[in-house]
Amino acid sequence: MDSKYTETSSPVLVHNPYLCGLKDDILYHFSLGTGTHNLPALFGDVKFVCVGGSAWRMKEFIEYVAAELGMQDPKSDYPNICAGTDRYAMYKVGPVLSVSHGMGIPSMSIMLHELIKLLHHARCTDVTIIRIGTSGGIGLEPGTVVITKQSVDATFVAKFEQLILGKLVVRDTDLDYTLAEELLQCSKELGQFKTVMGNTMCTLDFYEGQGRLDGAFCLYTEKDKHKYLTKAKEAGVCNIEMESTVFAAMCKLSGLRAAVVCTTLVDRLKGDQLSSSKEVLHSYQLRPQILVGYYIKKQVEALKILHR
Amino acid sequence: MDSKYTETSSPVLVHNPYLCGLKDDILYHFSLGTGTHNLPALFGDVKFVCVGGSAWRMKEFIEYVAAELGMQDPKSDYPNICAGTDRYAMYKVGPVLSVSHGMGIPSMSIMLHELIKLLHHARCTDVTIIRIGTSGGIGLEPGTVVITKQSVDATFVAKFEQLILGKLVVRDTDLDYTLAEELLQCSKELGQFKTVMGNTMCTLDFYEGQGRLDGAFCLYTEKDKHKYLTKAKEAGVCNIEMESTVFAAMCKLSGLRAAVVCTTLVDRLKGDQLSSSKEVLHSYQLRPQILVGYYIKKQVEALKILHR
Repeated sequence: MDSKYTETSSPVLVHNPYLCGLKDDILYHFSLGTGTHNLPALFGDVKFVCVGGSAWRMKEFIEYVAAELGMQDPKSDYPNICAGTDRYAMYKVGPVLSVSHGMGIPSMSIMLHELIKLLHHARCTDVTIIRIGTSGGIGLEPGTVVITKQSVDATFVAKFEQLILGKLVVRDTDLDYTLAEELLQCSKELGQFKTVMGNTMCTLDFYEGQGRLDGAFCLYTEKDKHKYLTKAKEAGVCNIEMESTVFAAMCKLSGLRAAVVCTTLVDRLKGDQLSSSKEVLHSYQLRPQILVGYYIKKQVEALKILHR
Repeated sequence: MDSKYTETSSPVLVHNPYLCGLKDDILYHFSLGTGTHNLPALFGDVKFVCVGGSAWRMKEFIEYVAAELGMQDPKSDYPNICAGTDRYAMYKVGPVLSVSHGMGIPSMSIMLHELIKLLHHARCTDVTIIRIGTSGGIGLEPGTVVITKQSVDATFVAKFEQLILGKLVVRDTDLDYTLAEELLQCSKELGQFKTVMGNTMCTLDFYEGQGRLDGAFCLYTEKDKHKYLTKAKEAGVCNIEMESTVFAAMCKLSGLRAAVVCTTLVDRLKGDQLSSSKEVLHSYQLRPQILVGYYIKKQVEALKILHR
């Protein structure tokens, strides 16, 4: 652990006694490393990290947030910091880092291990991390934005289970409730689209795992599906996605202030296929970006941490 | 189910009575669909599908296999068929389809649901599917290629567990043993690198899930790690990756002839970090491509199904 932090600043924690023994820590899936890159110089000023599944969307977000913060670089097209690999994409403007994580818990988990190490090696403090994603809604008009109160698994329990050395380990999936409330307040101030706070269910599969009727395999009935989704709704589930439990669990362990903000692309009580036009789906996907961009702008202005 | 198959040809099976009721089946994560694309015309001749995590690698593979089959198109740079999305990339030359699947079981699962539907809608028959991937080896010289005999989970059991409507469903992870033997024979004929047949362990995480000492979190000791990997070795595990169980389970359900061929990038008994040079790691990654390219060429020549 590094001891250079002030008493009031909150570091990014790792929990691994072996890390300090590594001469060069290679962040393989980012194509970065402590031996090849000056991480404190490159990332030391990061205060906000936004993560999302799609590399395209995370590039779009950095362009959007640069404009919001008045930090556009007319000469630059925001180069991909992870250009040496196609596993993830990463962009930065001022105190904001934008990183893609692919689809599903394992892909998110690899990214977060390396991101947490990156922020730790860079000696970042007081970092807020927000997942901006897409999801299926339950009983919500498509395009509604959901700020996650609790992330629950496919049995509606707020926990993340994983096998470590073949043994089951259960971790909490608590997110930062104050941050969630602040984001909800931002949406009210914006007044551009409906935003709700509710539980988010995280599954390991998009088709059978979420009770869809349009996968290659469907060995249950439409009635079974509706029964399951209705039970989810009764448990407070507003939307379904595929990364939030591991995101919540790992961010909590590393002391990151974390929130999940997802748009809904379909009301799963009414259908399964994402059949809205590309334009409409894209406008829905912009909503978490607009909300989180507004939040970051407000924070940056308040904290006067603009480009140093 | 389609009834246009001859008695001896083997179709690609879906198990979903709701599919035939869909007017337009949108393969959302491929940006393809039955209403927008003539799938039989585009994909009806596919006999070999190769899948791998990285989009770059799958493009490299289609270029390699095109050259092997003498089917290079000097005017074309092999356009990405899924150019409308950044979730997956897909390339085709003659009877060979090359598709990326990202990292981890959920990402593989989404891709396979849509791939199986695509092959089904396209009325493909007698399709062989091979995952060409990267992995960590156990007690093997880095660069050794492993052809999977059985895909096992993190407790060394040959099964794939998933939650469907919140309930545990267990599926077989049998691969095609004859195909594995044929691939091993091809490697002998090639004589370019060491290839073994053994069990492959599939985990949900790259760091803690595989007992690495270099993740953001490591709450076990080096001794615990070695004990676990030694037990894995005793259970016949030669290498560790993150997609093979769901790949085996879903391919079996859909009647696809399936194999897994992975190169090993590191001997996990000796270390965790992928610290070989980029050039060396790349040369290792080419080996499954070379082996599977050779196999496909041999099959294509034998079956005289060259460009129709």
